[in-house]
Amino acid sequence: MEDIKTVEIKEDILSRNNAGAQELRESLIRRKIFYLNVMSSPGSGKTTLITELVNRLKSTYRIGVIEADLDGAVDARTIARETGVKTVQINTAGACHITYQMSAESLEALGADGLDVIILENIGNLVCPAEFDTGSAKNLVLLSVPEGDDKPLKYPLMFEVASAVAITKTDVSGIFDFSAERAVKNIKKRNPSAPVFVTCAKTGEGLDALEAYIKSEIEKIKL
Amino acid sequence: MEDIKTVEIKEDILSRNNAGAQELRESLIRRKIFYLNVMSSPGSGKTTLITELVNRLKSTYRIGVIEADLDGAVDARTIARETGVKTVQINTAGACHITYQMSAESLEALGADGLDVIILENIGNLVCPAEFDTGSAKNLVLLSVPEGDDKPLKYPLMFEVASAVAITKTDVSGIFDFSAERAVKNIKKRNPSAPVFVTCAKTGEGLDALEAYIKSEIEKIKL
Repeated sequence: MEDIKTVEIKEDILSRNNAGAQELRESLIRRKIFYLNVMSSPGSGKTTLITELVNRLKSTYRIGVIEADLDGAVDARTIARETGVKTVQINTAGACHITYQMSAESLEALGADGLDVIILENIGNLVCPAEFDTGSAKNLVLLSVPEGDDKPLKYPLMFEVASAVAITKTDVSGIFDFSAERAVKNIKKRNPSAPVFVTCAKTGEGLDALEAYIKSEIEKIKL
Repeated sequence: MEDIKTVEIKEDILSRNNAGAQELRESLIRRKIFYLNVMSSPGSGKTTLITELVNRLKSTYRIGVIEADLDGAVDARTIARETGVKTVQINTAGACHITYQMSAESLEALGADGLDVIILENIGNLVCPAEFDTGSAKNLVLLSVPEGDDKPLKYPLMFEVASAVAITKTDVSGIFDFSAERAVKNIKKRNPSAPVFVTCAKTGEGLDALEAYIKSEIEKIKL
């Protein structure tokens, strides 16, 4: 009985979150603001990849970054220092995910209306953030080589909600037992349509292709 | 209002879970069964480290392993193949953590009464499993070198609930910007008393010390 009650509460929370997120997404798209939600495990290279992408896109677009963490402001300081773009840090005080309300409040704090592109670095967590729609136009999910190519089998929802997947840290492929081919096969099992980019922020591998994909998604909204 | 209601429900769930877990822990200790809960991010090397520890301990103790995942049975098959000990896989069907009930049911399925030591590999997640007491005697938390030495600052509760921390994959320290000294300093900020073991399952670094720690904790219960 207890379990059933818990599930009902959760479904209620999720369905309200989905409705709010859908409204937020439509409002952002109407205002021609591209909102990208970046998700992965802790330490998969979200901050580093976002830094690279912002530095490639900032001459063309006005960009802002939202950094979400349970505690601290380590990543917001890094992004601000390395890119110079407007950045806000939100702390969830222990919560494992970002709701659409937190997302909306952060966009407000950042001043979304003056921007073309907003990137959200979600909580490092392969489970809960996948359940909570943030109102983003697209979800970019990262899978780093040291984590292993089996993760899409073990964390299915995260790969199901991905609009695109970036395999990261490929410079260490030789050291870890990671096959990009197996990873892509496992991702395709969960999500046959999401494009997969094989990348390395250190060597630059795959970043041109990922940048081109993101630009094409931004332009779809700007049209 | 909505947020306040959610928190109350959560606190209620957590306090019921804590009470159940405490009973389970006392019951296991009375029966002289040592229950170890291993937690970390996805891909931090839990399965590999557990395999090493089981192979070192299995000549002295009767061991069983519980593998928890959202979906699939990849890790249970690996553990069974690499160690030969009794293993059960539980799937949470998407849930981000193990409750004490799931823990108790898995111990039952494994046949806890015929065993001296039971190791639970929790869901790969640095957030939610820290909130849900499993009834374990000790919590071993892993932090892998590729994740970065700043993680204890960003995921405080996980390091606060740790009985001990193992830094893993130190063979790749030279490649990643990871300082064991900084990591230990950050862990100590969250948890001044937990011993920290600097380990590598591949090279064997630190495994003797970690094995000795676990043996001493097992013997405390066996006395």
